[in-house]
Amino acid sequence: AGSSAGLTEEQKEFQKVALDFASKEMAPHMAEWDEKEIFPVETMRKAAQLGFGGIYVKPDVGGSGLSRLDTSIIFEALSTGCTSTTAYMSIHNMCVWMIDTFGNEEQRRRFCPSLCSMEKFASYCLTEPGSGSDAASLLTSAQRKGDTYVLNGSKAFISGGGDTDIYVVMCRTGGPGPKGISCLVLEKGTPGLSFGKKEKKVGWNSQPTRAVIFEDCVVPVGNRLGTEGQGFSIAMKGLNGGRINIASCSLGAAHASVLLAQEHLTVRKQFGEPLANNQYLQFRLAEMATRLVAARLMVRNAARALQDGREDAAVLCSMAKLFATDECFAVCNQALQMHGGYGYLKDYAVQQFVRDIRVHQILEGTNEVMRMIVARNLLQG
Amino acid sequence: AGSSAGLTEEQKEFQKVALDFASKEMAPHMAEWDEKEIFPVETMRKAAQLGFGGIYVKPDVGGSGLSRLDTSIIFEALSTGCTSTTAYMSIHNMCVWMIDTFGNEEQRRRFCPSLCSMEKFASYCLTEPGSGSDAASLLTSAQRKGDTYVLNGSKAFISGGGDTDIYVVMCRTGGPGPKGISCLVLEKGTPGLSFGKKEKKVGWNSQPTRAVIFEDCVVPVGNRLGTEGQGFSIAMKGLNGGRINIASCSLGAAHASVLLAQEHLTVRKQFGEPLANNQYLQFRLAEMATRLVAARLMVRNAARALQDGREDAAVLCSMAKLFATDECFAVCNQALQMHGGYGYLKDYAVQQFVRDIRVHQILEGTNEVMRMIVARNLLQG
Amino acid sequence: AGSSAGLTEEQKEFQKVALDFASKEMAPHMAEWDEKEIFPVETMRKAAQLGFGGIYVKPDVGGSGLSRLDTSIIFEALSTGCTSTTAYMSIHNMCVWMIDTFGNEEQRRRFCPSLCSMEKFASYCLTEPGSGSDAASLLTSAQRKGDTYVLNGSKAFISGGGDTDIYVVMCRTGGPGPKGISCLVLEKGTPGLSFGKKEKKVGWNSQPTRAVIFEDCVVPVGNRLGTEGQGFSIAMKGLNGGRINIASCSLGAAHASVLLAQEHLTVRKQFGEPLANNQYLQFRLAEMATRLVAARLMVRNAARALQDGREDAAVLCSMAKLFATDECFAVCNQALQMHGGYGYLKDYAVQQFVRDIRVHQILEGTNEVMRMIVARNLLQG
Amino acid sequence: AGSSAGLTEEQKEFQKVALDFASKEMAPHMAEWDEKEIFPVETMRKAAQLGFGGIYVKPDVGGSGLSRLDTSIIFEALSTGCTSTTAYMSIHNMCVWMIDTFGNEEQRRRFCPSLCSMEKFASYCLTEPGSGSDAASLLTSAQRKGDTYVLNGSKAFISGGGDTDIYVVMCRTGGPGPKGISCLVLEKGTPGLSFGKKEKKVGWNSQPTRAVIFEDCVVPVGNRLGTEGQGFSIAMKGLNGGRINIASCSLGAAHASVLLAQEHLTVRKQFGEPLANNQYLQFRLAEMATRLVAARLMVRNAARALQDGREDAAVLCSMAKLFATDECFAVCNQALQMHGGYGYLKDYAVQQFVRDIRVHQILEGTNEVMRMIVARNLLQG
Repeated sequence: AGSSAGLTEEQKEFQKVALDFASKEMAPHMAEWDEKEIFPVETMRKAAQLGFGGIYVKPDVGGSGLSRLDTSIIFEALSTGCTSTTAYMSIHNMCVWMIDTFGNEEQRRRFCPSLCSMEKFASYCLTEPGSGSDAASLLTSAQRKGDTYVLNGSKAFISGGGDTDIYVVMCRTGGPGPKGISCLVLEKGTPGLSFGKKEKKVGWNSQPTRAVIFEDCVVPVGNRLGTEGQGFSIAMKGLNGGRINIASCSLGAAHASVLLAQEHLTVRKQFGEPLANNQYLQFRLAEMATRLVAARLMVRNAARALQDGREDAAVLCSMAKLFATDECFAVCNQALQMHGGYGYLKDYAVQQFVRDIRVHQILEGTNEVMRMIVARNLLQG
Repeated sequence: AGSSAGLTEEQKEFQKVALDFASKEMAPHMAEWDEKEIFPVETMRKAAQLGFGGIYVKPDVGGSGLSRLDTSIIFEALSTGCTSTTAYMSIHNMCVWMIDTFGNEEQRRRFCPSLCSMEKFASYCLTEPGSGSDAASLLTSAQRKGDTYVLNGSKAFISGGGDTDIYVVMCRTGGPGPKGISCLVLEKGTPGLSFGKKEKKVGWNSQPTRAVIFEDCVVPVGNRLGTEGQGFSIAMKGLNGGRINIASCSLGAAHASVLLAQEHLTVRKQFGEPLANNQYLQFRLAEMATRLVAARLMVRNAARALQDGREDAAVLCSMAKLFATDECFAVCNQALQMHGGYGYLKDYAVQQFVRDIRVHQILEGTNEVMRMIVARNLLQG
Repeated sequence: AGSSAGLTEEQKEFQKVALDFASKEMAPHMAEWDEKEIFPVETMRKAAQLGFGGIYVKPDVGGSGLSRLDTSIIFEALSTGCTSTTAYMSIHNMCVWMIDTFGNEEQRRRFCPSLCSMEKFASYCLTEPGSGSDAASLLTSAQRKGDTYVLNGSKAFISGGGDTDIYVVMCRTGGPGPKGISCLVLEKGTPGLSFGKKEKKVGWNSQPTRAVIFEDCVVPVGNRLGTEGQGFSIAMKGLNGGRINIASCSLGAAHASVLLAQEHLTVRKQFGEPLANNQYLQFRLAEMATRLVAARLMVRNAARALQDGREDAAVLCSMAKLFATDECFAVCNQALQMHGGYGYLKDYAVQQFVRDIRVHQILEGTNEVMRMIVARNLLQG
Repeated sequence: AGSSAGLTEEQKEFQKVALDFASKEMAPHMAEWDEKEIFPVETMRKAAQLGFGGIYVKPDVGGSGLSRLDTSIIFEALSTGCTSTTAYMSIHNMCVWMIDTFGNEEQRRRFCPSLCSMEKFASYCLTEPGSGSDAASLLTSAQRKGDTYVLNGSKAFISGGGDTDIYVVMCRTGGPGPKGISCLVLEKGTPGLSFGKKEKKVGWNSQPTRAVIFEDCVVPVGNRLGTEGQGFSIAMKGLNGGRINIASCSLGAAHASVLLAQEHLTVRKQFGEPLANNQYLQFRLAEMATRLVAARLMVRNAARALQDGREDAAVLCSMAKLFATDECFAVCNQALQMHGGYGYLKDYAVQQFVRDIRVHQILEGTNEVMRMIVARNLLQG
């Protein structure tokens, strides 16, 4: 019932590569990255050398050309080493995929290679202070002036914001609602681009989060992905994959936490025997493992549906995100409980998984928004 | 995200056949079968004509030769018409499979054809009054006398007991523990075979449940499946499939209940608008649908593992049974709640699904035993 | 942590009387009343001799003059003997209280004594086929004609309907909305009063449930409780107590179920020792007992608040009903699970508690309506 | 349904004092104390001037002489300002109570006054690296040498450890098991007393946690509370109150979180209206408030039972700790979710309540140990 059951030989192989990378290059540092709020640029570049900077990006611009399912397997594996860092990488991958998919040839060749190699890093700029769940009401405006747009407004909760090089920005080029939104690629260094203070967070500390502020930023029209008004559609398509990715990161955190709990129960003794001899704890562990398997099936099933372009892909992605991020948080939190007092100490990794994973229930669309998407599908279908 | 997503064309086809049969031949009668405690022999024979009497039994003895996954799809579909009846059929199928798999050629030819056509019906006799979860401690004894065994003891909670023709009986031919158990096939009419009173139950009323009592029943040695001492192993192998089957029946009940709830929410008005306009109910419905999809993936994944003879099949079957029967009960029960007062009336089908499905968390190994199996696997592996 | 902890000596005394009555006069018959759908009129009259027909009704008209807390203690105790019967008695008590409280002296003296002695039985008629949660939209009309009202319309899900003598009917004497509703007392035998078929239900089988139909029923104006337009207010005030009463019945069912589970775990052996030796079951039992204690505190606290006329009484009654009926159902259902296969048989009482208690989450305002009431209080306060 | 419902005038008065102190002296600093890991000595001394340093300690040695219920009310109130700081204060109070109750007159007069005024601070030293849940197996030894004990061993997870002045230490003066344990009071500065590194924790950052190490520490026999061998009994009696205290701190955190969520839902707009207009969020808020009320009733009921010396006090304290700390964590965590992305930022208080409260499910006996205590009571009683 492990994470490699039912995979192809090729999948098992890059899963092993990712697991090895996680345990050797990430896990030993995850506590330090968390404590010191280090954005591990060099480690991510090493990961990119393994093909993890543009996993589902086409090979001609440096991507690995793998499927959504392959991507999920890789993010799950990497997350066992550091969930926060992998979660950022998953957002980066989503951005590169958006450029690869909706950009023209020139844009693909200009942006993708250095992003796939993680020479440069990308940020996804959708949420605004006043528009979270209601993303389509965003206010950041891009006024056309000749061959350029002049960008004004601000974005909130931007992963990587301030430390990254490429900003994929949803902004309003037309009227209100989703149809008035376009997607621009903005480069760091553009005059008028500035950043808010670095946010202090419960977890996700290995990736900086800042507001991104645009004051009369001039962006060439040639930096627009797709047509005018296509931005919201691009954003949503990105998010389908983004939801699977973040759910996959939850799987990794939960998997690592189950293993930590199992280890702790076996080693720690009370009342003269290992904690693992307690039937109550055995049964709770069984429930955790069962829920993890269910979550994994949900995520992989949605990944397959998205890959195959199935009609029900969007609703399956929402279900997978809802289910996996809720269940995996519960699994990690229960694993913490099984550690007793040790679970509360930063010397033990399990608490970091709990803190890192907590935000997965909130972002890429809160789990309340996921329920809304699923409910609409049920009651309109 | 429906029950046919991701299936092959052939699977979709017999799924449709089963769904049609369920809606035309079963659903219109399920309330009556429940109220009057009717064992719908003729309806089941019609189902057998469609190949549902020996779904995963080999064709040379009348079976349909389908896979475990195919079987799960069919039982899920049939259960939407009557969960109790389908659950009995799943036990019957398990018995035929046991004879087909562990019987010799003579036994296969003697018993399977009339069982596959449901001319005759089978019962699985493992549980005893004193041995439920601890099945290996069973006491029913079979003493060898020449070419016969003399059977003494009694079995409890036997589905079909008294109304069926063929009894697949686990009994002790050797010392204590699982190694001393053999598997005999007993035919109705054998002198010394009698039955307890018909049990009054919360649900599962379309199948009779009785104690089965053996007093000096003489059974030819030629009715033993496998070797002496192989019985417990046969019983457990049967149960792996049995667990998937019963979990599949839970899926069908939950699926039907979600549809009933959806319909009720859309039609029933309060405060001047359909109940479906209540966001809380929408979101709960979304959760129910999500959990149903997860349960279905667990069951189908386990079915595939069992079919492929994977090493982790037994633990995946236990996980699937635990997860699907627990979650689907919760789904049905929530669907009942959404019906308000109507949900409590026997005129509405949803309450029958709740009553019928409740026992799935208990039988074929209680869900506590499922946790035990999973835990052992985790802590020994 | 038992049900008598913290009670006064007097309360402990009538609790003991009620528990004795429950175990001697009700428990031995509860299965039969359920199976044969017997409305145990004589048993209830015996209970009335102990003062349980008008517990919180004033003594001058035959009531016991006890407090809401006292009432809760009594209904909890009686419910351990038969939840369904006690639940009907609690509705009867609510009706008598409404007449006692909102009736004039003549009405009190005319109706209350024979109701307190349960010579006559009462039914509460609020819900209509088209108005459940949205009770204020009821359509049953009472047109004034001289000294009478002419009543037309129908009521649904009426406990006791058809077998009872006195119907406390909410009907529209004015315009739409709650202000147009009045409360009339209708006697059996009134021309034009008829009843629907006896409903088949999951539980609550010892009390008949029928639709009540009014066709030009003539009711004297002197049968109106309170003023014209006061009916909805009377109905809601009745329901505050009704919610505590029904929640108290849930406590009794849960308490009895915990004791049954405890007994079963101690007596039933598996793997060579009592089930009670399983740590998992021990811990689940501890959770059940804990939740029962919490539910009891919620109910008793609300009863006190209602008795004292505290401003927060209505919201506390709603919280108590929501919490106690949800938690107690879960407790009973878990107790059933602990019985294994026996829990599913009608020979064992635990399943009847599960079936009887299930409707408590639905009636007297569904638990969804309870959430609505609490939420309004939180967000408007 | 607020926290002051049903209290006496006097209780409402000191509740108000505590709430004022929490909002003026604690809440404005709680984020800073957390971030900079400040042990707010001066703030606690101000609290002590209000009588909060020895709340349930007798007045002749500087205590406030209040009841356990009063104490619970005060800790709940203070926790709304800073849960971590209040939790430490509750441990300090428990220590002073132990000296006040089990100490002789000389000890009471020597230690209590400066502890009640919080001139000095106390730590409770029970848990050891190898004995958590199994406290009675502790190894720290105290060998009698004339008028002194020589103390050797170490304690883990000691709140205040290193920054406090008085250590109430459980140690072994006799044979194995609970009967061999005594209770010594050790003062800071004793040669051989040293401390481990300051632990990095998920929360509870305003109180230092360190290991406490004893190497040949000489303690006068006159520092022993009670008789030799009475230590474990003293420790357990302290913990009954300690469990109520810590549960009370959970109530405060949950109460504050509900208010924060309510405020956020009212102020934050999405889709053109306040979040509070979403029925799903309304209903979840109603559930949170309901569970908080239930938790408060459990805690106050246990406090009363302990105060009255009722036989069921210990089991009620365990139930209250189990229920309140579990439910209140869920409430805080749900309140965080309602904040969306803001809930994850350290600028918003709700996340600190979640982090601080998490450890309450683990310490003063894990909630698994609480289940064990309750189960024993149920199955032996």
